[in-house]
Parts: sequence; structure tokens; C-alpha cells
Amino acid sequence: MASPLPHPLSALSIEETNQAREIVLSLHPNTVIDFRTIYLLEPPKAKTVPFLQIEHAGKLTPSTPRPPRLAEVCYDVIGGSKVPEYHESVVDLRLHKRTTHKIVDTEYHANLSIFEFETVVTTIKNSTLFQEKLKAIKLPEGFDVVIEPWPYGGPDLTDGPARLFQGLCFGRDTRSGNPDVNFYAYPIPLIPIVDANKRELVRVDEPATGGKGDLLTGKTSKTARILDHCRPAEYVPELLPGGTRKDVKPLTVVQSEGPSFAISGDNLVQWQKWRMRLSFNPREGAVLHDISYDGRDVMYRLSISDMTVPYGDPRPPYHRKQAFDFGDGGLGHAVNNLTLGCDCLGVIKYFDGVLTKADGTAVATKNVICLHEQDNGIGWKHTNWRTGRAVSTRRRELVVQFIITLANYEYIFAFKFDQAAGIEVEARATGVVSVVNIDAGAAPPNWGNIVSPGALAQNHQHMFCLRIDPAVDGHNNTLVQEESLPAVASNPATNPNGNYYEVCQTPISTSTSLDLEPTRHRVFKIQNRSRINPVSGRPVSYKVLAPPTQLLLAHPDSIQSQRALFARHHLWVTRYRDYELYAGGRYTLQSRREVGGVADAAARNENVLDEDIVLWSVFGLTHNPRVEDWPVMPVEMLKVQIIPSDFFVSNPALDVPSDIDGQSKLASTCCDKA
Amino acid sequence: MASPLPHPLSALSIEETNQAREIVLSLHPNTVIDFRTIYLLEPPKAKTVPFLQIEHAGKLTPSTPRPPRLAEVCYDVIGGSKVPEYHESVVDLRLHKRTTHKIVDTEYHANLSIFEFETVVTTIKNSTLFQEKLKAIKLPEGFDVVIEPWPYGGPDLTDGPARLFQGLCFGRDTRSGNPDVNFYAYPIPLIPIVDANKRELVRVDEPATGGKGDLLTGKTSKTARILDHCRPAEYVPELLPGGTRKDVKPLTVVQSEGPSFAISGDNLVQWQKWRMRLSFNPREGAVLHDISYDGRDVMYRLSISDMTVPYGDPRPPYHRKQAFDFGDGGLGHAVNNLTLGCDCLGVIKYFDGVLTKADGTAVATKNVICLHEQDNGIGWKHTNWRTGRAVSTRRRELVVQFIITLANYEYIFAFKFDQAAGIEVEARATGVVSVVNIDAGAAPPNWGNIVSPGALAQNHQHMFCLRIDPAVDGHNNTLVQEESLPAVASNPATNPNGNYYEVCQTPISTSTSLDLEPTRHRVFKIQNRSRINPVSGRPVSYKVLAPPTQLLLAHPDSIQSQRALFARHHLWVTRYRDYELYAGGRYTLQSRREVGGVADAAARNENVLDEDIVLWSVFGLTHNPRVEDWPVMPVEMLKVQIIPSDFFVSNPALDVPSDIDGQSKLASTCCDKA
Repeated sequence: MASPLPHPLSALSIEETNQAREIVLSLHPNTVIDFRTIYLLEPPKAKTVPFLQIEHAGKLTPSTPRPPRLAEVCYDVIGGSKVPEYHESVVDLRLHKRTTHKIVDTEYHANLSIFEFETVVTTIKNSTLFQEKLKAIKLPEGFDVVIEPWPYGGPDLTDGPARLFQGLCFGRDTRSGNPDVNFYAYPIPLIPIVDANKRELVRVDEPATGGKGDLLTGKTSKTARILDHCRPAEYVPELLPGGTRKDVKPLTVVQSEGPSFAISGDNLVQWQKWRMRLSFNPREGAVLHDISYDGRDVMYRLSISDMTVPYGDPRPPYHRKQAFDFGDGGLGHAVNNLTLGCDCLGVIKYFDGVLTKADGTAVATKNVICLHEQDNGIGWKHTNWRTGRAVSTRRRELVVQFIITLANYEYIFAFKFDQAAGIEVEARATGVVSVVNIDAGAAPPNWGNIVSPGALAQNHQHMFCLRIDPAVDGHNNTLVQEESLPAVASNPATNPNGNYYEVCQTPISTSTSLDLEPTRHRVFKIQNRSRINPVSGRPVSYKVLAPPTQLLLAHPDSIQSQRALFARHHLWVTRYRDYELYAGGRYTLQSRREVGGVADAAARNENVLDEDIVLWSVFGLTHNPRVEDWPVMPVEMLKVQIIPSDFFVSNPALDVPSDIDGQSKLASTCCDKA
Repeated sequence: MASPLPHPLSALSIEETNQAREIVLSLHPNTVIDFRTIYLLEPPKAKTVPFLQIEHAGKLTPSTPRPPRLAEVCYDVIGGSKVPEYHESVVDLRLHKRTTHKIVDTEYHANLSIFEFETVVTTIKNSTLFQEKLKAIKLPEGFDVVIEPWPYGGPDLTDGPARLFQGLCFGRDTRSGNPDVNFYAYPIPLIPIVDANKRELVRVDEPATGGKGDLLTGKTSKTARILDHCRPAEYVPELLPGGTRKDVKPLTVVQSEGPSFAISGDNLVQWQKWRMRLSFNPREGAVLHDISYDGRDVMYRLSISDMTVPYGDPRPPYHRKQAFDFGDGGLGHAVNNLTLGCDCLGVIKYFDGVLTKADGTAVATKNVICLHEQDNGIGWKHTNWRTGRAVSTRRRELVVQFIITLANYEYIFAFKFDQAAGIEVEARATGVVSVVNIDAGAAPPNWGNIVSPGALAQNHQHMFCLRIDPAVDGHNNTLVQEESLPAVASNPATNPNGNYYEVCQTPISTSTSLDLEPTRHRVFKIQNRSRINPVSGRPVSYKVLAPPTQLLLAHPDSIQSQRALFARHHLWVTRYRDYELYAGGRYTLQSRREVGGVADAAARNENVLDEDIVLWSVFGLTHNPRVEDWPVMPVEMLKVQIIPSDFFVSNPALDVPSDIDGQSKLASTCCDKA
């Protein structure tokens, strides 16, 4: 039944990517084109679902109608006008033709590309203005300058439509000759601003470097020897003054019979009754499609939709420190090429991705997603205390992981599947916290923490949005809010002893935003109201358990908040529309307002009862850095669970074997110490 | 420096336990004594801390003054009065004499003992009244009756001072001959009540078995063939109709060089700069003492203080379904004897405990605590995107685990230590959810879920309390509440762009209760205000990150709530007092109000600024059962993290090696499937 054709939900191959490039090039003769990205435009759901249904039934034939095979091609057309024109074309690869073409309004900015970052750094380095500003600073002996390109964030009104980037500057101690010295320990208070289209330095911002009360004085006590009080903060092992600890003995994971998962074709994953397809794209990283358990549909699509990281330092220009780590672009190139034995243990399956070079040709990027199993303690256990018989099963998980490095910072995303038909999405934050210069002796301000002499780590938030496109026993689902609430007391007819509490369910009828309320134990269920659990008599459902973390703190009128409307609520429910994938909108780079994001989708006030709905789960981390977060922070973890609730007729993991692991050993004789 | 004497924080040995028994017996000549428990009464802190300081300094000598070695002996004196008298004596084992003796007022009840449960079951089985009631029910062919003894919960006012237990009854299908058939699937609606002191059946409650609206009708549609619509729900593998799944391939943890921890004496654990002592007692299970990292004090004591599980079914007598799984007693015997390769993987160190037989003699209970290491993914990572150099460390954790089985239900508790000086306390809930009979065809009620035909799993809560006795760089600490709050907008002097947020700290000056407030990102820090972090200029601290879960739902005036005052708030801070260990009070069995628990301690309104303080962290699970929780539920996990915050001058895990694990393998060639 295997088809030589790519599956409709497989990412574009290198050949398909190059084919899309050539079709677009042929439509722009005698023109200079800078390509940004070429990737699969997933086929419309209305054409994909019928195909999947035939596939699930095992009835695919060569004549089964297939959804179109589409490529999204994003590129700049250079010349003809002063400013490059940003185009987006959709190419039908089977018909060998372009089906849509638009020139994006200059109000919106194309995603950044990694190649653009090189332009930004070169422009800054070649600028005489920047060189002059730098000259006023006396770097320590043997130091040079590193420029870290950043998105410009939300522009000020005076910035106009220019395509701007900012450079954060650091001193690098070259004396060891080690290229991996930690330059972040030496922040230089200069922020050069570049117009990337014009390849011109616009200005150099000079942020304040004082402590508490800095904003009120409006001036800084900056001296020329601004880095002299900074101190090294190395993390590469060969530069650690005391070396690494010697008492970590090896712990290895051995899977002598190989993994329990199986991969078919290029992207079908099957494991422990789970079946799903996996793809990679340069905007969202790993995306999971067509997820089912034991032959029953659970989800159509699961992905990290976007995230934003606004900083809380009130001193201009730090209000522009706000990244959209997915939406701003560059994620494709920011994805780590994962390493065996480093990023996970055991038997690992890696998946490669396809990225686009500046000339539009495809290039493979190795090991961008890894798949492995892990043990996570006891899965379920019961001991019959009368007989002493204990039945204990391990909780095995399948992990789909990808990691991104965004300048100083790292995120580790994992989609975990368990044997009890649950899904957990985990985000780990690590990497180097972003720091700016602070004067020697300055009092610690209320917007950050001094994590190293001369280095102020500013308070910030990490706001994530997980997009859940459910298919709970089919595509017509309903979001139900369930709360557990104290009952009216002392009512002899309903609550004679005061121990009763009520469970109240509210189906959500119109697309909207909702917030978690842990004092009410508010839980969100995705129900299929046309399918009743034969045991409980209640509709089959999956519930979404997200942490009730703090929402966006920036003032609602601020640009930071306006461009991240999605981060103001914990959950959004919208009616499904093709290509409505991005919580913060399609164009977040340099946005002043979230356009076409989840807030706009919800504002359509569409019926979401028994409809094809999408959930957007928002969670975050208010990160007021600790000294312990320096120079590379221990992971902080956030988790969303999506678990069945009256979907099955018993614990789906009941049939997991309770075999004893014969390789475990007693430590009694090997670890005693005098 | 090793001493032949037991460490002051070691549990009593078998010899010491028997010695305590003999001293007590000699003081009660010509008397029948039923022993309940004998265990270490930890020495007063004022005498222990000086000893520990000398020990930490490596200056212990045979002449170092040692704290007293005390045994707490709890026993009933039989005869002389109609009702057994409950005594508590403290014996000084070095002086060979009793130092305190009290006869506990009949208002309070001694902890239950496992031997008492046998009396309860025998009394019920021998009762003619119970046999008559049972006769009115037609059990299916081949079924017998199982009686599950339970604490009586909070008594009604009419119950008087009698020592009562309730029996939950189930039908057991004996036809397979397998003693581990799941009888819980056949709940019988009879609840016999026993006076354990008199060894008499008091009455048999006959709870309603209807569904929605049951309470209002006040009567049930009960038929004699009350179990006929129930269905088997087996979990032991040999009884599973479809057997176990075959596609779980082995995953083993190999530690070829042994574990990284070392054990000295009987209870000193050292691992990755952590140092702590471990003890076991029959009330709290595993207790950790004198915890330090890299030679700096972090905690004096860490333990699970208590937990309560109130049920929300309003129909009498179900308001009395409320266990205090630690305080009610019996935990010692409820602790699982852990099994290699089942309850954890890798190289395991087990610790035994000492329990007391009914005659007071000591008996060893094997493997009640296990200690092992585990890998928990990436610990920290950073890639220098310019050079491509990635440094990635694994997060290794040390796990101290114990598991308790309380009739139908299981809890798995783990204290986890990581290399970044963080502690995580995890509670996993599993086992069989408690069910009661529900009529065939009854509409699902709002107080539970039908998880199997005829079996209604009632809504309930699990409310845990973790006791944290901190010693952050010494014993004088302060609890500080920190919140991250939106700032006043549009103030050009303080928040010109609306992105600023304020971090507000409030030291807590008087013992009190506090609640989490995630919308304010409320975080609790344990500060030592006399020790300032040299980098940040802020006091050294550890912060407690507990989940902001729903608090107790029962009405404040209800007995359920009155006897669990601790469960009404997320955090309590009290001034340290010796032997104030139990959140719900010393005597929870059959209590009508929490006495001598954390609420009373807080009500002393003592100064807690720069004092020896204790924190009590309350978290819980509102558990409205899913069908998937049946017959044995997949673990639900709750976690509290306690992590350093400006305690160190950098990431304490910076020196963890980033070596690649050479045993990991590529799956690319081994898992493809046609």
C-alpha cells in the first residue's frame, strides 16, 4: 500500500524545494531574488481529511484522490524600487505552476533570515559612527567586540516603516585564544540600529548603566572603562577555573532489543498504540500530525505556535527587547543539530530538515528532531495488602524533541506520549540570560538582578503558545469548561454535611479567550458530544491541563502588549481556518500590533459548538533572574498535559507488562564509604 | 571520627526499640499492654544543632556532648477500666528511664494499628446483624465478601467518644481461584460500623445506590441482586482478557561503575555536594535531616507532614469518607517493601525500617526507602552559534522514594535532589479509586463518575502538606513573599513605555497562613537576611515553588474542613517548636477539629522575622475520577520545587561534566517498518 508519492503531510524534500524555487525564478525573469524560506504549505484540511480517512481504513490505491502538493515560497525581489519588495508565492508542485502570488504590504515585515543577520553585523562593523562611539570606550587589554544581532522589537512611532535591527554589543577576551569564551559577561552599553534594506547604520543608542533610580536621573555615570569591573564567567569546561566535578559516574540507557517505535516512510511514527506523522518546518520546528491512539483520532495537528519574550526594564530603549522566537523568523537556522548521547540517551532516531539558502536552493540540516523513549518512573501500581501481591508498571514515554538557540538563549521543546494515551508538551528554558551593563557599585534596581559584576540580568517573561488542533473521535468537537465549586452549605436536601462540592460544566459556544482559575479548579475539556462513553454515560473527551502561570505583565496599551495579544489569556478557542497557525500573527517582526493572530480569529465570534475547533494554550514564565541562572541557567520546565477523560472504557495502560527489570542492581555492597 | 554510638538523627535500632519496650513493661507490672508504636523521638533541636555543628566541623570526639537518645512509646493499657487507656511514654535510652508519661484524654484517639484492623474485620464477620444484612443481598454465584477496614472519619455528634471504624464491603469472585481478583469492581452497599475497643458491631449503614437526584429522593431502588450488573475489572496480568501488550522492548539503566552516591554509617547520604541524613518512622515514612550543599546548611528537616482525602458525595454516611493517610496511623505497615527493577531502575540502595509488633517487640521491615540516581534530560545547555560549539550537560537526580498502600490507594513520594542545588518533592497518586455501588441505569450524579458498571467513583480531593524546616545558611531565616506586578502605566518618570513591571517583596513578620496567587506570580522565599550575596547584593535565599492548586472545598463549618484546617491555605509559616511536626495535629483519627496542628501553631502570632521558622506547603489534587482511572489509575503527579535564589555566586551545576554518553545508539537502521 506504500506510495512512491510523498505523503501529503510530509515536509518538502530537497528536490521539491528546488523545484518550487525554479518555478518562482522562472516567473521573475531578469530580476534579482533573495530567497527567505521555501517550505510545505500543508494541504487544505477539507482535502486532507478524506485522504487520511481512506489511509486509516487501509484502502489507499494509486487512484485515491490526493490533496495538492503545495510549496510556500517567500522571497525579496531586489531592484525596480528602492526598497526590496517582499513576495509570497504558493506553487503547486504537481501542476508545476504558481497558484497564488502576493506582494506583501510594506506595513508588514518578512521574517528575518540568518543571512540578514550577517548584513546587520557587517553594516555595524563598517560604520564610522559606531567605530567612533566604540572609541570612547576603553576596552580592557586583549578584548575585541562581538555584535549580537537582535530583532528590533516593537518600533517607536518615529521609526517609520524602515526594516530595523538592533545589535547588542559585548567585549570578548581574546587572550586565551579560545573562541568560546563567554563574551556575555562583558556587556557594552551601545546599541547600534541598522536599516537592513538600506544596509545603513541609523543611529547608536546609548542606554543608561546605573542602578536603582536610574530612570529618574535620566543620566548615567558611565566611564570610559566600562568593562573594567566585569569578571569572566566561563561555561566551556576547559575554561572552568576548577575544572569539572569528578564524582558523576556513568549512567547509561541500554535498549538491547532496539526501540519500541517503528518508522514507516519518511515520517510515520508508531509506538505503543500511538500513530502520528512528524514534520519539520522553519517556522514551528517539529509539528505532529494526524495523531491517533489505538485507531481512534485524537488530534489533527499539534505545534508550538509562537512565543514572545518581553523585557521589563523601563529604561529606553529596553522596551524594544521583545523577541517572538518563532514568529520573527530564523528559527529554522536556530534549530540545534542534535548530538547522540548529549541531547538524549538510549536509542535515538534523528530526523533531518530542509532549509533554504539565500539563493533559494535547498540544503539538508541534520538531526533537527530526535525521537527516543524514556522511563519516567512508575506508571501505575497497586498492592493487594491482603496477599502482598504488587503489580507495578513503568511509565515509558516517547519523546519528540527539538532545541533552538536564539543568540544567548536556548529552548528545549518536547512532545511526550505515554502509554496511558496522554500527551505532555514540555518547554525547558536554558542558555545565557540576557544582560546589560551596570556601573560598579550601583544599587540593584527593581527591574533586574546583578548576576555578575557589571552585568545586570533584566526581568522578563517567556510567554509560550501551544496550538492544539483536536480531533477527538472526529473533527467536530466542543470546548467545555469544568469547575469544581463549593456547594451551598447546610442545605439538608443537597449538602447535609457540608462535604459536597459541585462540578459545573459550561460548553463554550462562541470563539473566545478564557483564563485559568485554580481556586475554581477550572479545567478545559475537548469533548465530542456525539460520542458517549458507554461506561460513564458522558461524552468522550480529552482534557487540557496547563499551568495557571502569570499572563503578560506589560500594560495593555503598551506596544509590547499590543503586539502579543495572544499572551493576555490562558486559552483561546477558535473555529478552524486553513493556514491560521500563528498566535501572534503571521508577521511579528517589528509589528506594532498583533494582526491576524488568535485575538483576531477569536473576534470573529464564530460558533464553536460541535465544530472543527482549535485551542491555543498560553503559559509562561515570569523570569526574574537569580544569580544561579548565570552564566548558563539550569533548565526551568513548564508542562502542558493533554489526557483522555472518559475517552476510553478503562486505563489504557492496563495492558502494560509489569515485568521486573533484571538489569537493576543492589547498591548495598558498592557504595559504602568510611 | 566514626562513632560506635548511633547518630542522634538515626532511627531506633531493633535493640533500642526492644530496650524501650522493656523499660515501659517494667513500669506497668501485672498489666496487659498492647503496643502501638515505638520510634525515635528526635532530640530537641537546641541540643542537636550544637552537636551537628561540631560534626560538620569534623571535630567530633568521644567526649563531645551528645543529645539524649529518646524513644516514643505508644501503647494501650488493658483492664482496670472498661475502655483501654491510651498511654504515651518517652524513654531515655541512655539513662534507662522514662522521662515523660501521659495518659491521653479520651477526647483523642490513638493512631490506628494494623492489628486493630484485624479485630475490625473479625468483629464484622462474626456479627449476626451483619450476616443478616448480607443475607438480604444475593451475591452472584461463587462470590464471597471482602471487608475493607477504614478509619471512621469525622464522627457525627451522636457518635460519642467510642473508638469506631467502618468497613467497606465488596464481593469477590472466587471462581478463578486467583486471590488477586479485583473485588473493588463489586461494591456492596453495606457499611458496618465497629467499636474497636468493645469489639462490637455498632450498626450497619446502608447507603443509597441511586444516581442523580438520589439525595433528594432519600431512598434507593436497591434490589437484592445488587452486584449482577457489575463487571470484572482485573489488573493482575494473568487475569487480563487480552493479556499484556507485546511491543514494549526492554529499556535498562546501567551504572557500570556503580552509583555516584556514598552511604556512611547507617544513614548519612552524600551525593554531588549534597549531604543529608535519612531516617524512617511509622508516621511520616522517609524523613530527611541536616541537609547541606557544598558545606552550607540548607535544611534542618524535610518531611511529608500529613495529607487528607475528603470525599464530596453528599449522601450520608459518605461525609465520613475522609482519611488522614499519615496522621490516622498505620502508615508504617502501609509502606511498601520495594522491589528491585520494579519501583526504580539502575543501581539501588534500599533502607530498612523498624516496626513494632502488637507485643511491642521490634521487627525489621525490608526496603521501605530506596535511593537511586536518575537522568532527567538536559540540565543546562548553550550553543555558541558563531562557532557551533554546544555544551550540554545532563540533569542527574538523586531520588529518595517511598510508597504507601492505603487499602485501595497508593501514593509514591520522592524527594529529588539535583546538581544545581535544587530539591523537588514529588507525590504520585495511583492505585484503585474508591468506588461505591450504583444502580443499573442510574443517571450519572454530580458527585462522581461511573467508572465501571455498578461502580461509582466519588469525587474527592487529595490534600498534601510538606513540612519544610529550613536552615538557609543557618537557622535564623525569614519568609519573604515576592510578587511581580504591573506597574502604573504612562508615567514618563517610571514606566515611559508600559513594559516595566515591579517586583515587590514583603517579609512576613508574624506566624500566619498565606495563599498562592499566580496572577501576581507570588513566590515565597526563605531568606537569611544576615547573609548578603556578594554578587547581587541581596540576601541569600531558597525559594519554594508549589503548584497553586485548589484548596479544601468542604464548607468551612463542616467537620471535614474543621479537622483539616491546614488544607485551607497554601502556605503556613510558624515559629519552630520541638515536636510540632503534624499539620493536622497529633491525633487525627476520629478528630472533629484540628487540634495542635499548624493552624494552632500559626495562631500563636509569634515573631517569624530572623527566627527559626517552619514552612508548611499545602498542595492538592481535586480528583473527579475519569473512566481511565479504572481499575488502577495512571499516576497523577504533583511537584514542589525548592531552589536556591541568590544563595550561590553562579549556577551550582556549572561544573557538571558535559561528556557525551558513548552508549547511546542510532535507531536509524533498526526501527524501519514496511
